Amino acid sequence: MTSEDRPGPAGPASGTGTGSTAASFHEMWRDLRPVGRDASTGGYRRYAWTGADADCRSWFRAQAEARGLAYETDRNGNQWAWLGDPARGDAVVTGSHLDSVPDGGAFDGPLGVVSSFAALDELRRRGAKFSRPLAVTNFGDEEGARFGLACVGSRLSAGQLTREKAYELRDADGISLPQAMEAAGYDPAAIGPDPERLARIGAFVELHVEQGRALDLSGDAVGIASAIWPHGRWRFDFAGEANHAGTTRLADRRDPMLTYAQTVLAARREAELAGAVATFGKISVEPNGVNAIPSLVRGWLDSRAPDQATLDTVVAAVERAARERAERDGVDLSVVQESFTPVIEFEHALRDELNKILGGAVPVLGTGAGHDAGILSTSVPTAMLFVRNPTGVSHSPAESAAEDDCVAGVLALADVLEGLACR
Amino acid sequence: MTSEDRPGPAGPASGTGTGSTAASFHEMWRDLRPVGRDASTGGYRRYAWTGADADCRSWFRAQAEARGLAYETDRNGNQWAWLGDPARGDAVVTGSHLDSVPDGGAFDGPLGVVSSFAALDELRRRGAKFSRPLAVTNFGDEEGARFGLACVGSRLSAGQLTREKAYELRDADGISLPQAMEAAGYDPAAIGPDPERLARIGAFVELHVEQGRALDLSGDAVGIASAIWPHGRWRFDFAGEANHAGTTRLADRRDPMLTYAQTVLAARREAELAGAVATFGKISVEPNGVNAIPSLVRGWLDSRAPDQATLDTVVAAVERAARERAERDGVDLSVVQESFTPVIEFEHALRDELNKILGGAVPVLGTGAGHDAGILSTSVPTAMLFVRNPTGVSHSPAESAAEDDCVAGVLALADVLEGLACR
Repeated sequence: MTSEDRPGPAGPASGTGTGSTAASFHEMWRDLRPVGRDASTGGYRRYAWTGADADCRSWFRAQAEARGLAYETDRNGNQWAWLGDPARGDAVVTGSHLDSVPDGGAFDGPLGVVSSFAALDELRRRGAKFSRPLAVTNFGDEEGARFGLACVGSRLSAGQLTREKAYELRDADGISLPQAMEAAGYDPAAIGPDPERLARIGAFVELHVEQGRALDLSGDAVGIASAIWPHGRWRFDFAGEANHAGTTRLADRRDPMLTYAQTVLAARREAELAGAVATFGKISVEPNGVNAIPSLVRGWLDSRAPDQATLDTVVAAVERAARERAERDGVDLSVVQESFTPVIEFEHALRDELNKILGGAVPVLGTGAGHDAGILSTSVPTAMLFVRNPTGVSHSPAESAAEDDCVAGVLALADVLEGLACR
Repeated sequence: MTSEDRPGPAGPASGTGTGSTAASFHEMWRDLRPVGRDASTGGYRRYAWTGADADCRSWFRAQAEARGLAYETDRNGNQWAWLGDPARGDAVVTGSHLDSVPDGGAFDGPLGVVSSFAALDELRRRGAKFSRPLAVTNFGDEEGARFGLACVGSRLSAGQLTREKAYELRDADGISLPQAMEAAGYDPAAIGPDPERLARIGAFVELHVEQGRALDLSGDAVGIASAIWPHGRWRFDFAGEANHAGTTRLADRRDPMLTYAQTVLAARREAELAGAVATFGKISVEPNGVNAIPSLVRGWLDSRAPDQATLDTVVAAVERAARERAERDGVDLSVVQESFTPVIEFEHALRDELNKILGGAVPVLGTGAGHDAGILSTSVPTAMLFVRNPTGVSHSPAESAAEDDCVAGVLALADVLEGLACR
């Protein structure tokens, strides 16, 4: 059954509306918890179009069907579970993603999807009458762990990634995105912009675990997003000269590891001065031998700042420091911007409405992380809720959120959906 | 035919003794040049017990047989080509190795083996009468590129590597050394100390391309080794906390890449102050994602100095600097010494004899590189000749030596062999 077969705005259906909201949340959380979890690290390896991803998708479909929602996948492999007639064009949609970074945590993504279903259960428990259609969604390949580009599912749908570029994406084993989709049972010939499906959405709300400590510091369980910081990735190629580590005089060396090291420290210093963040988390070295001075050190800079001017200043300063040191080390430097996302301000009207629904005292905070909500924000009114992260740790097996805060997040999301869809 | 079948001290045999020494050298050089050479980098990938290694070994055997030398391999896979009866116990042996580092140069190792055969041709051309047996050798797995330990063939024979430890060696694909040897047609059950074979050697002379610029700076084509600097490898494990690169406040980070970077710069600084060398050429990062603060950065320090006290000072200073920065970064540091070789002084009497044979004006120089000659020096009188390297570059496709200097090396080696074996 596709969504087109469903009737219009729907009242409370039966489905999983019994028990408490906390119980409903926990049951789902327990089912999903072991999927794609590595026993040795405790981290998740739910990469797009792999077996673990398929298991997550089966779980999503089962949740939709258990609630009598109309299940569908779109042309880009994003999953949807509909209550009411999408053709009305003013649906309130909520959801997030189920894939993970390498050895990621349990909450980044799944908390939003589980909370969406749990919030729907809560509304049914309240006997809510829906005046607008509602949907829960799981966007594919949000983290980009396999193909190196984040938010592939939402980017494709919103027309921010062309089919041609998507076809060029390859994983570390050389498998292309279309090959991977086909192997997972999807039709890669169909991928592309999906304006008709996006036109169904009146508002999109994504709940996400906070990936910082702002809520912990302010003492709040739930917050509302103001904006996503502008952010980008720059590849620094430091080219020196391979040579014997034991016999080459220091004066005769062209050692790119020295230039890299200086640049790593410069990035931290410049970010600190500017109130931004800057990270060298990925490196590739040739030949990477203990007794060989490297011929090439390739480092990736990830930097983000509250505004574009600050970000530009930081990256320019890091590059300047790198060039100065490269000169001294006899190293050639090239810097390539691999990706860039400008600042995303979430719609002020929707944000204010959420704040009003939630009682007006909810903290509004910016974030340095990209999200599907950020991608969709250029097409539809979009908002985000954050749930407190007591340590701020994310993209790590140690990522966590307190039970009470997760339930508070579900209730806040339920309030928001009720306020938007049941007027 | 094994060496035991050969007669005693031999006069000039026929074999490859026609043409000029330069022609003899060039013919061999031309044959060996394409073996294991990577077309894209121009560097050599002659790793122990691979197909490229087997091709080098076939070449060695063919050279031995073309000269009527008695060919044999010993229990550890080292190759020998004998002229005269090894049982006399006072053989003059010369040779080097044919394997390479990843994308290594053409000269490191092969220059010594090719020069050994060419020097024998030169002596036959001179009509030299040998009073001692002579052998050319190719020691297996000198570079340690595949199993991570250098000089495996000579170490095993000299009893400096136990059979048990050798059996534990594994390559990057998890293949063990005995498995690799067996796949290459050798019997791994036989490996172990070989005192009887070493007892045949009266003197071992290894010719090698210089891996520095001392001869270039002094203006000499050929030099004699005084000593191999003490050297070692230390693994620095910097353990921090994986976290999101976009959302984690700088103040909340425990980023081990910062500590690593500071340590790389400290190593250079301390080596410069002490007149030593120190290199971080190999790194491993987890999870190595662009948007992830690393949980672990593992860096390997290679350091060498003219004497033990200087080396100890450098390594202690680098570790101290690393610990200070680790404290500041909230990073845990462990340092493990993975290997260490004390200073090796080549036998003074043999060194002086070489110098006398070569006219008394040959520069005597230390080196930071390990060699099979260094391993053997604890068992038999050993010496080394170096051939000028105009750039000092080694362990790189750009490694080079001038044609005239190579021929000068062959003639010097022939003089030495004649001086030692024909009195």
